[in-house]
Amino acid sequence: MKSVRTILLGLAAAGTIAGGVTAASHEAGVPASVKARQATMQLYAFNLGTIGAMAQGNMDYDAEAATAAAQNLVKLSSMNQGPMWAPGTSTDDIEGTRALPAIWTDMDGVIEKAVALNEAAAAMETAAGESLESLQGAMGALGGACGDCHKAYRQPE
Amino acid sequence: MKSVRTILLGLAAAGTIAGGVTAASHEAGVPASVKARQATMQLYAFNLGTIGAMAQGNMDYDAEAATAAAQNLVKLSSMNQGPMWAPGTSTDDIEGTRALPAIWTDMDGVIEKAVALNEAAAAMETAAGESLESLQGAMGALGGACGDCHKAYRQPE
Repeated sequence: MKSVRTILLGLAAAGTIAGGVTAASHEAGVPASVKARQATMQLYAFNLGTIGAMAQGNMDYDAEAATAAAQNLVKLSSMNQGPMWAPGTSTDDIEGTRALPAIWTDMDGVIEKAVALNEAAAAMETAAGESLESLQGAMGALGGACGDCHKAYRQPE
Repeated sequence: MKSVRTILLGLAAAGTIAGGVTAASHEAGVPASVKARQATMQLYAFNLGTIGAMAQGNMDYDAEAATAAAQNLVKLSSMNQGPMWAPGTSTDDIEGTRALPAIWTDMDGVIEKAVALNEAAAAMETAAGESLESLQGAMGALGGACGDCHKAYRQPE
């Protein structure tokens, strides 16, 4: 997953890009960068929701639909999110975010967790097309990747 | 772009998948499917914003940042959005959306425009890394692809 790691390293370069975008596009007090990362999380949740509903028996298993959702997660988690994590947009800085300051002081840890999410999504893409049992087996790693990042870097509600 | 067309054909199969998700995850009156497509549009706009700001001279040209934004657009526009466009979520059906009923009666047209967006994003990915002039030259097709879809399928404000 070297290429994804390289893409995600764009996180570390965010400072140079994001300032301009953020300053240029405030709306209702929440910077566009913050809205963009929240939109990304929402799309993670939406696609994970489809897979999770099948895993839990709340939706009929559909190999094609599950694979499509997993493929979406692979794409989303390999986006360059650098500009979405603009410096000065942590819980210490603004309202309307749960992003802890640790994100900006532990970039290596963030990238490690981001790569883990992308890898878990790729594993799900394979598993989801095989059988419901395979899908269920890949669910722990995928949900775990979400949880690991939230535990470390998201303010509890 | 045959593969993207195939992926986007998932739109046409949305009915079978999306009902369950939508019914299962209402929140504040707006279905999760609607929020997911609005999140997708927001991410289009965020990434296009970076490229557009450079094109207009409001941000210094940065080949790497522009390419990254274009790559994000390529990924986002090749997602399977089928479940995001659940039947029963047009302006005729619910509040909180500008998605016109024509989306569900003109699926061929929707797919054509979605493929055009993906192709314009791919062209921008190449152009953005070359020079500011190339980026500016690719801007028309990219903005045009957004506009074509909005003109046909989005309710004016």
